[in-house]
Amino acid sequence: MESDLPERVARAVAGTRAMVSGLFDRLRVDSLDEPGVTRDPYGPGEQLAHRTVIAAARGMGLGVEVDFVGNALLTLPGRDRLAPRVIVGSHLDSVPHGGNFDGAAGVLAGLAAVAGLQALGLVPDCDLTVMAIRAEESVWFGVSYIGSRGALGTLPDDAMEARRRDTGRTLADHVAECGGDPAAMAAGRRSLAPESIRAYLEVHIEQAPSLAEAGRAVGICTGIPGTLRYPDAWIEGQADHVGTPRRFRRDAAVAGAEFAMALDALWEAREAAGIAMACTLGRFHTDAGSHGMTIVPGTFFFSLDVRAYDAEILVELERDVEGIVAGIEQRRGVRFHRGIRAGAAIGRVDPAIAAGLEQAAAELNLPVLHLGSPASHDGAAFAAAGVAMAMLFVRNENGSHNPREAMEVDDLLAACQVLTLWLARNICQDSRAEQERA
Amino acid sequence: MESDLPERVARAVAGTRAMVSGLFDRLRVDSLDEPGVTRDPYGPGEQLAHRTVIAAARGMGLGVEVDFVGNALLTLPGRDRLAPRVIVGSHLDSVPHGGNFDGAAGVLAGLAAVAGLQALGLVPDCDLTVMAIRAEESVWFGVSYIGSRGALGTLPDDAMEARRRDTGRTLADHVAECGGDPAAMAAGRRSLAPESIRAYLEVHIEQAPSLAEAGRAVGICTGIPGTLRYPDAWIEGQADHVGTPRRFRRDAAVAGAEFAMALDALWEAREAAGIAMACTLGRFHTDAGSHGMTIVPGTFFFSLDVRAYDAEILVELERDVEGIVAGIEQRRGVRFHRGIRAGAAIGRVDPAIAAGLEQAAAELNLPVLHLGSPASHDGAAFAAAGVAMAMLFVRNENGSHNPREAMEVDDLLAACQVLTLWLARNICQDSRAEQERA
Repeated sequence: MESDLPERVARAVAGTRAMVSGLFDRLRVDSLDEPGVTRDPYGPGEQLAHRTVIAAARGMGLGVEVDFVGNALLTLPGRDRLAPRVIVGSHLDSVPHGGNFDGAAGVLAGLAAVAGLQALGLVPDCDLTVMAIRAEESVWFGVSYIGSRGALGTLPDDAMEARRRDTGRTLADHVAECGGDPAAMAAGRRSLAPESIRAYLEVHIEQAPSLAEAGRAVGICTGIPGTLRYPDAWIEGQADHVGTPRRFRRDAAVAGAEFAMALDALWEAREAAGIAMACTLGRFHTDAGSHGMTIVPGTFFFSLDVRAYDAEILVELERDVEGIVAGIEQRRGVRFHRGIRAGAAIGRVDPAIAAGLEQAAAELNLPVLHLGSPASHDGAAFAAAGVAMAMLFVRNENGSHNPREAMEVDDLLAACQVLTLWLARNICQDSRAEQERA
Repeated sequence: MESDLPERVARAVAGTRAMVSGLFDRLRVDSLDEPGVTRDPYGPGEQLAHRTVIAAARGMGLGVEVDFVGNALLTLPGRDRLAPRVIVGSHLDSVPHGGNFDGAAGVLAGLAAVAGLQALGLVPDCDLTVMAIRAEESVWFGVSYIGSRGALGTLPDDAMEARRRDTGRTLADHVAECGGDPAAMAAGRRSLAPESIRAYLEVHIEQAPSLAEAGRAVGICTGIPGTLRYPDAWIEGQADHVGTPRRFRRDAAVAGAEFAMALDALWEAREAAGIAMACTLGRFHTDAGSHGMTIVPGTFFFSLDVRAYDAEILVELERDVEGIVAGIEQRRGVRFHRGIRAGAAIGRVDPAIAAGLEQAAAELNLPVLHLGSPASHDGAAFAAAGVAMAMLFVRNENGSHNPREAMEVDDLLAACQVLTLWLARNICQDSRAEQERA
């Protein structure tokens, strides 16, 4: 006889629907800032969200710990409290006028999974911690993954001096104001040792409509992309009169256009070859102070973000970008100034956990899609620190970082079922014993 | 025996060198605004320049008239004062921090030519007027050819309400302050009837380095381009997260890049086919208020200036632009918003005058280059009003509208020789009689 665990997990998770919906409503009302919501990191928006989630965890009987970074660690104690723990986490901050689901959905998914295990009467072998992470969004301080990297002691050296775009105050100030310890963060101390973490799992809304397109509620992450970034690059050409003949021009904007089209062609070719990547020129502009209808642009400014899921591909892409730049410089008599070269390492997904999640989905008769994460996530910080990491994505038609995010709670609960069944199968010996008896 | 007139013209014009250099120095000192000079139209910079030129004309014994537009008409009386006159003109204003030669060189060339005829003892058959024109540069009021179109009564309806970029005051205010009659200008009255003008000639520095490249001091204009302009166009795409896969993107900036490259290819092909034109995207930019390194641009803004010397080509080019736009809209799921469609008619050069100038240059053993004017000029306003028009260009390596303008006075004097010999041959019967005797 087959185990009826998948069915019982599905029912238990379905039973958390009212709690999850209620928490989303509460988060939304507390952070409403039309259009959308604003949960500013280390500010009133994020603080209120943390208060709400901590109160819910207390109501569920979880242990509550807040580390010196300000992250909330909400723990269902395991049989062996000294064994490395499993963390299910995501962040509670949002971009300005963002949606209610980016970040928060992952924290509520963690609470729903724990509530599901509780309803099933399962006790984990090790501590199971829902982690509400601080300050993931880079738009505020110009630094990303502050909460997770702060906990792991992997923040960049000068991160605490970064200033929040709207308040103009330093991250150190903001952390202190929220009860954290900026000095400990600046010193690179860590609140979580990687070796004390058995696995980190994160549920997140998809930032692209791939799941919606495929008619799937849930996706299994195949990797978090690494990036090559030039935040502040520019092209030096020569300003000229609008009537200047073609052969005399060193038009910086046309050079920029050629760069964009070459990158677009490169992306198209890689995609046709089955290689996942993305390429974005987010800022792409002539100089507002000197451009004009009758002036051939002498300077052109851009930011570049190239992302891929394979370190070798990323190296290859950088070489391609260099080749494109050299060709344009030669053909158009311009000069590219790259400025700071930034970027992030690739976030490797643990193949055993991913396979386990896939099996759980199959047992639940839930068709899934395998997809590379479009964006980076706190999970990448854990993977970079050597922690086994995996992610689940939830269908969301309208992208993230905007008020039109469109996640259905039922789709989130489908991901929670997969997560809960994985937890039951992998960190609850009760459940394994039961399966063996069956 | 051949006439020695070319030789005598060359000597007479060479004799004006000190006057011309002195006037350039005076203009430069009066309008110095490092880097470069600023002769703001209907403001202190232009006023001083008019004062200097009028004083020089008085010193040469010319009649001085200032029309209600504020243009100075400096006249060497002809034998028949009622016959249609010949005008040699250009403007005295400059762009902010511009060069000393754009505009002013043409006015001083007129004075030098008149001084040359005086030195030769030649009296013109009709009045010969050096016209110092007001406010040619469009950068100040957003309206171009204010002085020439004001004189011809062809200004746009609402031109007098245009505000000067720096002062914020209306053109009407500025005109009144300089002693002009804004009401007459607003009513479309004219100070010059086209039928009272036998020909309009203009000497101007070249705005591109074609003459420098060819090693020629002087160019004969083959035409002033007509333009198709979209001053404020934009592309509507969709803002997305930086990780959004290619197939979901409606990237407005990449659409702008494709537009730029298509126009560049179109220009390259036309040029290869021997068709003169130019194409400039002077403003070409993402939105400073919403762009960012991690956002796929949802909007993109540009200005377009397409110019050509043949009305049919201009129509063809507009059709091509429409085809390019339609293709990009379809391929990239974006929408082009063209905004106001502006532009100017083609300024036709009178072939008889151009041939006469060429013959004069040949007699002076001065190799010339035929070239389409890169830019538009006051001459186009006269041609549009039905006046026979021609232009001479003077070598200038570094483009115009910048402090690096590099015209040699000797090159200007070479153009003056051509102009003076043409005047002698065509509007001075003394000289014709002499030639017949020879």
